[in-house]
Amino acid sequence: MQLPHIAPLDASLRPVLQAAIDDKTKPLGALGQLETLALRLGMILGGAKPELKRPALLVFAADHGIAAAGVSAYPPEVTAQMVRNFVAGGAAINVFTRQHGIALEVVDAGVRAPLPPAPGLVNARIANGTRNFAEVRAMDPGQLELALTTGMARVLSHARLGSNAIAFGEMGIGNTSSAACLMSRLTGTPIEQCIGRGTGLDDAGLAHKREVLAGALARHADAVEPLDALAAFGGFEIAMMTGAFLAAAASRMVIVVDGFIASAALLVAQRLEPAVLDYCVFSHCSHEQGHRALLAHFGAQPLLALDLRLGEGTGAALAWPLLVSATAFLREMATFGSAGVSTAG
Amino acid sequence: MQLPHIAPLDASLRPVLQAAIDDKTKPLGALGQLETLALRLGMILGGAKPELKRPALLVFAADHGIAAAGVSAYPPEVTAQMVRNFVAGGAAINVFTRQHGIALEVVDAGVRAPLPPAPGLVNARIANGTRNFAEVRAMDPGQLELALTTGMARVLSHARLGSNAIAFGEMGIGNTSSAACLMSRLTGTPIEQCIGRGTGLDDAGLAHKREVLAGALARHADAVEPLDALAAFGGFEIAMMTGAFLAAAASRMVIVVDGFIASAALLVAQRLEPAVLDYCVFSHCSHEQGHRALLAHFGAQPLLALDLRLGEGTGAALAWPLLVSATAFLREMATFGSAGVSTAG
Repeated sequence: MQLPHIAPLDASLRPVLQAAIDDKTKPLGALGQLETLALRLGMILGGAKPELKRPALLVFAADHGIAAAGVSAYPPEVTAQMVRNFVAGGAAINVFTRQHGIALEVVDAGVRAPLPPAPGLVNARIANGTRNFAEVRAMDPGQLELALTTGMARVLSHARLGSNAIAFGEMGIGNTSSAACLMSRLTGTPIEQCIGRGTGLDDAGLAHKREVLAGALARHADAVEPLDALAAFGGFEIAMMTGAFLAAAASRMVIVVDGFIASAALLVAQRLEPAVLDYCVFSHCSHEQGHRALLAHFGAQPLLALDLRLGEGTGAALAWPLLVSATAFLREMATFGSAGVSTAG
Repeated sequence: MQLPHIAPLDASLRPVLQAAIDDKTKPLGALGQLETLALRLGMILGGAKPELKRPALLVFAADHGIAAAGVSAYPPEVTAQMVRNFVAGGAAINVFTRQHGIALEVVDAGVRAPLPPAPGLVNARIANGTRNFAEVRAMDPGQLELALTTGMARVLSHARLGSNAIAFGEMGIGNTSSAACLMSRLTGTPIEQCIGRGTGLDDAGLAHKREVLAGALARHADAVEPLDALAAFGGFEIAMMTGAFLAAAASRMVIVVDGFIASAALLVAQRLEPAVLDYCVFSHCSHEQGHRALLAHFGAQPLLALDLRLGEGTGAALAWPLLVSATAFLREMATFGSAGVSTAG
């Protein structure tokens, strides 16, 4: 399949933006990481007065065959139940996107039982969940390609509506197992350093998860290329996010990266098109040790460290006002000259 | 002088709030530090559906006699210049309070040169700056009392307007020196661990600052009680913040604590009325080593760690949307029962 071309950022903008930041009425560097963020946003959006427009957050939901192997504290029915909760407006991601005026779209990428049509719910079902990757590859090549292109198409529909900033969240019981295997395979990190308690495993559950995933990695030892690994271990929601990351970067959008699962999808995208990272802002560092290691692998400096481990895109939504603050200070703050303020002597 | 009485929080609310948080449609504890914050806000505001109303941010500005000792990278004129910038709406704190709908008030607590009257500028001048505490106590007992009661009165005026959440910022060239001496004296921390580069000192400047402040601490060895230390080393803006913290807690308001200087003012308030800490949310951990140590002293877990070192209340304003998120999820999220979502098995 044809992947979209991602242009690296224009390095010539960096000194222009840095000068604009340094001329604001504050001591040099006094806004810390918010200045780094402003620089990045200016480079992505192409100027010293960047403006974020129509932020959108897409939650991709799907079920995982691997859940049958007992790797999650929650039963797989919860995926569909939570999608209904998203549609009804009662989940955490609904609260935070409402708070910040972020357009929320929920995509059924392949929940086990079909859901009734509802406003705000996009039916993009690949199948009734993936196959159990402890036994066979999670998806076949046709399913993988459909998931990638669907993720791309969802992003482009928001770009056409005027969005220049986007975030991706997910829901899928069992998907920390997918993310951990993708991370282990593509970064060479031992599986025990990629897994955690997900949303609530006890010690025995964690040991079982490690054993199941080690077995699955051995079974799919041939799946070493990014798309092969994605087909072997991925969920439909993860593959859609991978496509979505690629399309968003190709469309020069600001991408707000949520937690561990979203980062695993980004890892696949990065292996396909390294320049995708240029367009990413990392919203938070979660409780999962795999997430911390993956952030370090990206060289990312996340904005928040609130020990979130919910998914749904909640970390991205909570960090959103910091992006707005970063662009606002660039656009609105006075300069030393305009305000008649003396510089350090 | 009579200090306001601060009631400790009602511990019986804790289990009620924790149960409400745990019944929301998310894995137990999955919102991490946001759950701790929600619990605190519910306890301060007295219920499981807390609502933040009319947030206000008061920036207290004053000049410091100690600035004549060359402890800052900026000339003292910058205090007045920045107050004009606040009044004109061009400073960072203007941008961030506008973004979040926070009412901003600028208080001239004693800038060297009187400023022309302006909308949004409260004239509460104690004097044309403090005296140089390298030589004499920064303020006399009458000035101290007037600063404390003025800070209290400013808070009460916002409480009367309906605010139940408030933050304090400051501007005052030289005020990291005041804060460092207060911290050293009241916590017993050696002065070299309380100071940093402020807003831009080089190595020689830092060594000079250490020497000047060590001398001042020796000169005022008798100033060991909180109010004596505040009179000896304080700025008018710091003393007003101390009064403001006390009045806000006595009024059962949520207090968002900004950076190092605000924390030093809070330290004095805590030594006078320990229960003031119950009402505080710590917004950020700054670059200054003294700030980190002071936060540890309070046992505080700040919300942001963006290496900010600007003051003005900018850390408090940037963290504000997280407080809104914490109350919003408590008020708006569905419960497992209401949404028909299965719990962990």
